[in-house]
Amino acid sequence: MGSLFEDSANGNHANGFNPSDTAGKVITCKAAVAWGPKEPFVIEEVKVDPPQTMEVRIKVVCTSICHTDLSAWMGENEMQRAFPRILGHEAAGIVESVGGGVNDLRTGDHVVPIFNGECGDCNNCSSNKTNLCNKYRVNPFKSVMVSDGKPRFSTGDGKPIYHFLNTSTFTEYTVLDSACVVKINPNVPLKKMSLLSCGVSTGVGAAWNTANVQNGSTVAIFGLGAVGLAVAEGARVRGASRILGIDINPEKFSKGKEMGITDFINPNECKKPVHEEILEMTGGGVDYSFECAGNVDVLREAFLCTHDGWGLTVILGIHQSPRMLPFHPMELFNGRRLVGCVFGDFKGKTQLPDFADKCIQGGLNLDGFITHELPFSKINEAFQLLVDGKSLRCLLHL
Amino acid sequence: MGSLFEDSANGNHANGFNPSDTAGKVITCKAAVAWGPKEPFVIEEVKVDPPQTMEVRIKVVCTSICHTDLSAWMGENEMQRAFPRILGHEAAGIVESVGGGVNDLRTGDHVVPIFNGECGDCNNCSSNKTNLCNKYRVNPFKSVMVSDGKPRFSTGDGKPIYHFLNTSTFTEYTVLDSACVVKINPNVPLKKMSLLSCGVSTGVGAAWNTANVQNGSTVAIFGLGAVGLAVAEGARVRGASRILGIDINPEKFSKGKEMGITDFINPNECKKPVHEEILEMTGGGVDYSFECAGNVDVLREAFLCTHDGWGLTVILGIHQSPRMLPFHPMELFNGRRLVGCVFGDFKGKTQLPDFADKCIQGGLNLDGFITHELPFSKINEAFQLLVDGKSLRCLLHL
Repeated sequence: MGSLFEDSANGNHANGFNPSDTAGKVITCKAAVAWGPKEPFVIEEVKVDPPQTMEVRIKVVCTSICHTDLSAWMGENEMQRAFPRILGHEAAGIVESVGGGVNDLRTGDHVVPIFNGECGDCNNCSSNKTNLCNKYRVNPFKSVMVSDGKPRFSTGDGKPIYHFLNTSTFTEYTVLDSACVVKINPNVPLKKMSLLSCGVSTGVGAAWNTANVQNGSTVAIFGLGAVGLAVAEGARVRGASRILGIDINPEKFSKGKEMGITDFINPNECKKPVHEEILEMTGGGVDYSFECAGNVDVLREAFLCTHDGWGLTVILGIHQSPRMLPFHPMELFNGRRLVGCVFGDFKGKTQLPDFADKCIQGGLNLDGFITHELPFSKINEAFQLLVDGKSLRCLLHL
Repeated sequence: MGSLFEDSANGNHANGFNPSDTAGKVITCKAAVAWGPKEPFVIEEVKVDPPQTMEVRIKVVCTSICHTDLSAWMGENEMQRAFPRILGHEAAGIVESVGGGVNDLRTGDHVVPIFNGECGDCNNCSSNKTNLCNKYRVNPFKSVMVSDGKPRFSTGDGKPIYHFLNTSTFTEYTVLDSACVVKINPNVPLKKMSLLSCGVSTGVGAAWNTANVQNGSTVAIFGLGAVGLAVAEGARVRGASRILGIDINPEKFSKGKEMGITDFINPNECKKPVHEEILEMTGGGVDYSFECAGNVDVLREAFLCTHDGWGLTVILGIHQSPRMLPFHPMELFNGRRLVGCVFGDFKGKTQLPDFADKCIQGGLNLDGFITHELPFSKINEAFQLLVDGKSLRCLLHL
C-alpha cells in the first residue's frame, strides 16, 4: 500500500513548481469543491488569490480526511453551512509564496496547516496555560479570512468559494493566515506530516499534554477512530500499563492492538454498564479516560470508569447534540475531573515542529494510521471509506 | 466580644477533668440533641460509651456551627435524616481516652475533629492526589460508627442517639474514629482551632491547594459566607491582585473588606449578567472562581466569569437540588475547567497540624471569622444567628 506515492510525498514536490512564476498572481488550480451538504465533491478549476499581509499560500502535497470534514460536508450544524466551500484541514505542503509581514516562513518551506492557530502575540498565546489563540483558534463558523472578511478562493466566473476551519486543504493551492502554518523539518517524510494537522496531534497530545499519562498509568479510550487510537499510541509510548479500548465496532480491535490497546470492551457484549466492568477490571478505575465519541451517554461512562479521588476524563469528541453534561454538581466532589482538549493542547507553531521530530525519532507509529492512499481525484471514494468506518486515514495525493 | 471565654478556651480545660476517673467507663454528660427536623435542640443528659478499637473519646471545649449542620437539622435531604441525632462537626477538644490500637493520640492531646477522615492506609490515602479516604471520607448518610455499625450515644433510658458527619460535636463528650481526629500543637489557642474543622480549612485550602492561587492572580468568589470569606482570606495571603466578592446580601461586604475582597458585586444591582460584568472589569475574566452558594445558576456565572483558556472554577457549595450541571460539553473546549473541592483538599491528619501552625504564625485572620461567642446552652440562639445571616461563626463554649 502506498508505494505508488512514495516519491511524490517525500518533499520532492518542491521541485514541481516554480514560485517565481506564480508569486503575487492569481493561481488557477484544481480543488474539490463542496457545493452543498452531502453533495459529491466536484474536482474543478478554482482561482486562488495571492496571500495578503500575514498570509501564506501553500501548495498542498497531500491531504487527509477527518470526521470534522465529514460533519461539515454533511451540514450537520446549520450555522456552519457556507457553500460552495473547500473543506479539508489535514495536510502537508510547501510554501509557494508569503504575504507582507510574514518573517517566519518562506517559499519552499515544508509546512503543515493547523486549524487551531497561534498568533504568538495575544494574551492567550503569551500564556503557557492554553493553546487557544484569541484570534486564530478553531472556529467552525468562520469561512473567510480574518484580515478583510473575504475568501481567497473563487470560481472561474468570480463567485466566492468559502474557507473552512482556518485551513481548506482539498485543493492544490490554499491560502492561510501565517498563524495557521507550521514550518517543519524538511528531512522528515512530508506526507506523514499530514496526520499531524489534526487527528494524531490531538490524540497523542491529549495523552501527553492534557492528561500527562505517566509510566504505569491506566487508561480507557471510548471510541477507536483515529483520535482514539492516537490517544492509545501516545499512552503506549508513555508506558501506560493498561490501555482499555471501548468500541461497538469489533473491527476496530485488530488495529487497536497495534496501537498498544491491551484490553477490548464491546459495550454491546457487556452484561453490566461499561464503567462497572472497568472498575472491576482495574480494581477501582483507570487513571485517565478519553471520550472520543461525541456522545453524552458515553461521556458519563467515561467519567464514572475513572478512579475516584483523581480520575481525569478528557473530552475529545465533538458533541453535536444539544444535550448538556450528564452530571450532578455533587458528583464532582468525588475527585473525578473533566476537561476538554483542543488539538492535544499543543501550541501549534511553537510545539508542533518538535513533535514532528519526535514522531519520526521516537517510535510513534504514524504509518499505522495511514490505512489508504488514493489520488486526489478519488476524494469521494475516500469519503465513503470514512463513512463506512473502513479507513482511519486515507491520504489523498495531489 | 469574647473575653468572657478567653480563659476557658486556651487549653486549660485539660485541667478540668480527670481522665483516670472516666477512661473505659460510660460518661454521662450534656449534649444538644436534635429530636427531629427543625425541632429546637434540647440540652439533655446523654450517655457516651467508651471508645472501641481505633476510636477516640474527646472532651469538646468549643464547637461552632456550619451551614451543613443547618441543612441536616432542617432535614433538607430525606436520606440524611436520622433522629435523634447529635449534630455539629466544627470543634476543638482534648482527648479523654483512646481505644485499642490508637497510637498517634493520647489522653490530654489537643485535637480537632475532621468530618473527612484519613485512615492513612487505603489506596487513596497512599496517593498524594486526593484527600478522599476510602473508609472515612465525608459521608452525610452515615450515622453510626464504622467498626460495629452502632452509635456510641444513647439516652438515659438506652435509646440510641445517632452520629453526624464522622464527628458529632454538640456534646460535652463525643466518640470519633481516630482517623477523624487531628492532633494539633498545644501552644496554639485551642478555641480558634474549631474553625479549622471545616469552614476555614475548606475555603483557605480551596485557594491554596485546589486552585493554587498565585501572587498576582485574580479571583471571584460567589457567596460570602464563612467558606467564601475563607477563600478570600486564603487568596489575600497568597497575594492575589484582585479579589471580587459576589453576594446578594450587601451586609456581607464590610466583613469581606477585612478578608481582602477588593471589589463587590451585588447581582441584584447589575444591569447585565454578572459574568459579563466581571469579564469587562477584569479584561477577559478572572483566573479562578469559587462557587460557595450551592446553586447551579450561580455556578454557571462563576464558570463563565473566568478567563477562557485557563480559568478554573472550584465548586464548594453543597447542591441540594437535583438540577444537573448547566454546561454543554462543547463549553469545556474553551479551556475553562471545573473541579469539586472537599475540605480544601487537605489531608486532615497529615496536613492540618502544619496548617494550624501557619494560621497562627502566618497572618491568617482567624479572629475575623468568630463573630459571636455564646455558652453551649444558647445553641438555639446561635442557630438563629446563622439562619438570619448575622453570624459567620458563633463559637459555643462547653
